[in-house]
Amino acid sequence: MAIVLGPHQYGKAETRLVRIVRDDARHEITDLNVTTAMRGNFDAAYLEGDQSAVLPTDTQKNSAYVWARTHPVDPIEEYGLSLARHFVDDVEPIDAARIEIEKFDWTRVAVDGVEHDHTWVRSGQEIRTAAITVGSDGAHVIQGLKDLVILKSTGSAFKDFLTDEFTTLAPTDDRVMATSLVAKWRVSGEVDGVDWNAMYAGVRSIMIERFANLHSLALQQTLWHMGRAALEAYPQIAEIRLVAPNKHHFLVDFARFGTRNDGEVFHADDRPYGLIEASAIREGAPAAGDAWRFSAGLA
Amino acid sequence: MAIVLGPHQYGKAETRLVRIVRDDARHEITDLNVTTAMRGNFDAAYLEGDQSAVLPTDTQKNSAYVWARTHPVDPIEEYGLSLARHFVDDVEPIDAARIEIEKFDWTRVAVDGVEHDHTWVRSGQEIRTAAITVGSDGAHVIQGLKDLVILKSTGSAFKDFLTDEFTTLAPTDDRVMATSLVAKWRVSGEVDGVDWNAMYAGVRSIMIERFANLHSLALQQTLWHMGRAALEAYPQIAEIRLVAPNKHHFLVDFARFGTRNDGEVFHADDRPYGLIEASAIREGAPAAGDAWRFSAGLA
Amino acid sequence: MAIVLGPHQYGKAETRLVRIVRDDARHEITDLNVTTAMRGNFDAAYLEGDQSAVLPTDTQKNSAYVWARTHPVDPIEEYGLSLARHFVDDVEPIDAARIEIEKFDWTRVAVDGVEHDHTWVRSGQEIRTAAITVGSDGAHVIQGLKDLVILKSTGSAFKDFLTDEFTTLAPTDDRVMATSLVAKWRVSGEVDGVDWNAMYAGVRSIMIERFANLHSLALQQTLWHMGRAALEAYPQIAEIRLVAPNKHHFLVDFARFGTRNDGEVFHADDRPYGLIEASAIREGAPAAGDAWRFSAGLA
Amino acid sequence: MAIVLGPHQYGKAETRLVRIVRDDARHEITDLNVTTAMRGNFDAAYLEGDQSAVLPTDTQKNSAYVWARTHPVDPIEEYGLSLARHFVDDVEPIDAARIEIEKFDWTRVAVDGVEHDHTWVRSGQEIRTAAITVGSDGAHVIQGLKDLVILKSTGSAFKDFLTDEFTTLAPTDDRVMATSLVAKWRVSGEVDGVDWNAMYAGVRSIMIERFANLHSLALQQTLWHMGRAALEAYPQIAEIRLVAPNKHHFLVDFARFGTRNDGEVFHADDRPYGLIEASAIREGAPAAGDAWRFSAGLA
Repeated sequence: MAIVLGPHQYGKAETRLVRIVRDDARHEITDLNVTTAMRGNFDAAYLEGDQSAVLPTDTQKNSAYVWARTHPVDPIEEYGLSLARHFVDDVEPIDAARIEIEKFDWTRVAVDGVEHDHTWVRSGQEIRTAAITVGSDGAHVIQGLKDLVILKSTGSAFKDFLTDEFTTLAPTDDRVMATSLVAKWRVSGEVDGVDWNAMYAGVRSIMIERFANLHSLALQQTLWHMGRAALEAYPQIAEIRLVAPNKHHFLVDFARFGTRNDGEVFHADDRPYGLIEASAIREGAPAAGDAWRFSAGLA
Repeated sequence: MAIVLGPHQYGKAETRLVRIVRDDARHEITDLNVTTAMRGNFDAAYLEGDQSAVLPTDTQKNSAYVWARTHPVDPIEEYGLSLARHFVDDVEPIDAARIEIEKFDWTRVAVDGVEHDHTWVRSGQEIRTAAITVGSDGAHVIQGLKDLVILKSTGSAFKDFLTDEFTTLAPTDDRVMATSLVAKWRVSGEVDGVDWNAMYAGVRSIMIERFANLHSLALQQTLWHMGRAALEAYPQIAEIRLVAPNKHHFLVDFARFGTRNDGEVFHADDRPYGLIEASAIREGAPAAGDAWRFSAGLA
Repeated sequence: MAIVLGPHQYGKAETRLVRIVRDDARHEITDLNVTTAMRGNFDAAYLEGDQSAVLPTDTQKNSAYVWARTHPVDPIEEYGLSLARHFVDDVEPIDAARIEIEKFDWTRVAVDGVEHDHTWVRSGQEIRTAAITVGSDGAHVIQGLKDLVILKSTGSAFKDFLTDEFTTLAPTDDRVMATSLVAKWRVSGEVDGVDWNAMYAGVRSIMIERFANLHSLALQQTLWHMGRAALEAYPQIAEIRLVAPNKHHFLVDFARFGTRNDGEVFHADDRPYGLIEASAIREGAPAAGDAWRFSAGLA
Repeated sequence: MAIVLGPHQYGKAETRLVRIVRDDARHEITDLNVTTAMRGNFDAAYLEGDQSAVLPTDTQKNSAYVWARTHPVDPIEEYGLSLARHFVDDVEPIDAARIEIEKFDWTRVAVDGVEHDHTWVRSGQEIRTAAITVGSDGAHVIQGLKDLVILKSTGSAFKDFLTDEFTTLAPTDDRVMATSLVAKWRVSGEVDGVDWNAMYAGVRSIMIERFANLHSLALQQTLWHMGRAALEAYPQIAEIRLVAPNKHHFLVDFARFGTRNDGEVFHADDRPYGLIEASAIREGAPAAGDAWRFSAGLA
């Protein structure tokens, strides 16, 4: 049986690109981590080392820099679409390009109550993400966020679960629930002209509201309702995928010290953690095509 | 259009489990990071918070610990198969279980030239991995490694590549090539009785030999030949997937100082880096089924 | 020449403690990383393994948890003073105790414009720190912050520097200046009754103002003026120490592409980075005593 | 009371330098992380931004690269001494220079049992360190290692410790003991001509032997005996400082499952951990002078 080349792609990962807009005294900053990946008939490069069809990853990096000068970087989805189309349209051997972007937020500092023109501090840990694929089946955009660390100190139970001989966990009516959310939502239909910043703010806000206000019987339930609410609010979203560690906060046992601990002092544990993965899908929405391809390793 | 629950799984991630075998004075150590994930009809947990079919992740953790006492943990693939079958066979609502294992190596210390009975130091950064899936389509094993940092100081060129207006990279006949390899190979056919430790050592050795001895015209070419050689040597391997950052080592320009730098002093850069993903496939091998499912995010 | 035991201390590091105040529907959260260290005549433990004077680190951890229930954790300096005094006053062999605390900030989420009672998201990367030492020379408090990532896109030059045969850096009148600040300031005199939260907010605000408004000729100059301004505003502060990486943002060369880059597109580099360490001292202020001892390794 | 500039230094941190020796077909590799710091009368730079006495950190980086071409990098202590002396001797305003070096080990790969000429894999996590200071009080060398992860599965007890009302830890006669050792030893007297590689190998070997063979009553005791043994073997070593997390391995309670766990299955916990700091000193040895200055933050 023959051994053949399977799926492959190559590119430049984690180009750390900072764009300053300085058209007037009040500057703007956009801080990005850009990863580009190319697909096409690069078989000769793999099989024989023939580079004649290979656009070097160094050139991809240069292109990302130049595009940040000649095209808007805000919203990041438009920048990514433009850069991906450049690779596919302008570089003959490239059949499809995937651009993954992380956006780090900065907050303008205030001095004596007045916003400063050109100084910022890094905002929270949360990172906005985008994955743009342009190829033979069109243009796809997956918008998302990661590292949104969120916690509720009540309004969460976990009980009436299946037990077996290895069960030691006690059921609880009231616990701390915390996670570091990763969410990615795929937009179907026309991707040009979408108000990406509004959609991002809206989906983020809706998911936080559901996390906060839903009385949770399990993180699974909370995730589903977060995802469903996002799809209900934005008809352009075809599906959403959520990955959420259950960051355990264990109530410290104070009975040993003759005192009580009524949900007040917790040990925040590192590992192990629960890991819940869920998705919500709009029935009848256009198929994903290559939107998720290679999004986390080979297809 | 209705919004429905899509693919999902849940489990306990990163249970840090150390197993000491102390049957005689010479102890053995196995140091694992175990992640378990369950699949089945858990829709009620997501939709309504009904936990009656949910085996808590805490119980999964306990089971992993007990299994490490009552079943061999070496090779890790057999431990994973046994644990996965327990979940599927013994816990009614569970249709499929996925066990991911990282194994950290330890080297027995020598004192005055004699191996010590019960003291070790952690070996290199390299981690052996396994991903076992047991479900309705049978049992799958993906063996692998990650963080194998390997470098060659010559025997690598990069030239005759495609150029465009954004090209600045100079071609080279001789460069440092380095990567931190992630490789995963899927074994098809009967997974019981395989000599997993021998296969691991063999594939690792073959890949290192190819990296070292192939005169490389690109990292793409090197990866393909590493993967192909593994499949040629082990007919049970149906496919192999390789992800490799091109860890750039830039020759420092000494012309500015009136001296030469003939491949002697390099700056090892962090970011950005090339990222090459490739796979080799055995034509006609059994299909992967659920082997890769959720292996890197939702399917 | 005899070999003798030198300086030593022992304790429990990184107890991750979350305190919820739930006296009414609107909860409060305090999220801490607590490290305790004990000093005293523990020579027998080191020399002979005699533990009779050793309060185990596990007990120190328990004490930190109980103290978070029975004493306020806000401000962290008062919590640390109280816990340190407990060890010194209540545990006979302990001569001195050092408590180091990191405080992670959380922001209450807003739902429909209304602050939520019991849900928060983690705020920025910045961490508030405190190092409290209680011993024979009294009580010392060092307040601080770390990981305050701050950037200005103009108002920073670097030129007219010393040159030698290895100089390649070009002088510049206008560059991006960015750092991830670590600052620690020692409070002298009476440490009970200080308004720690006001001092923290004040020093942070003053340092940010100086970073933003001072036209910088070097990061060294900026740091000094940040430190001096803090001491000018708070007479209780005897000294301040600042450690600041110069996080280089390199202007990407666009001349190669026939276009311009007037301070607009930068590569944010990881390593190497400049590292500037500076301090401002109030002449005549009380001596530091043991305040800094072991604060970064052995004295 | 006046506010004055206190202790300060500045330099370039973490220059990642790889040196290949390619004098014949069998290459050699040295992989370093070099940090340089300068001390002197740089007050004008801090107070007024006057750079005329400041050798830029970029130039320091260039010098480190050139020195790696024109001077041996093995042993790292000699490279550091040479580079430090260059800064102090050749650059007028510099009074003292401190060079900190981390060395990452590589293992030559074997192909068919034969060592390969130009291919290596990264060795273990352990890092060799050196801190060289050259200034008005002469030349100092501190040799060391970090991240030496070492574990013994028996031969360690912890009992008969002090108890109080917060004690919950049970005494034990037999436990797993593990740490990730940081050790630094200061060499006094003449630093030129020392066989640094032999000393490093010797001290490392002695410390491992003591860890393995000493029946431990506490990590404190083990550390002291490791340090003392190093000083006994090497009269040039004036003192040694050890920092060691007690990486807890908790025996998993199997009584709940009707089975036993006689020291066989452990949970390796992340945080909190014990943290033991100790030192051994040779009485009458020459004073440290500036050897440790700024070694971990401001003096």
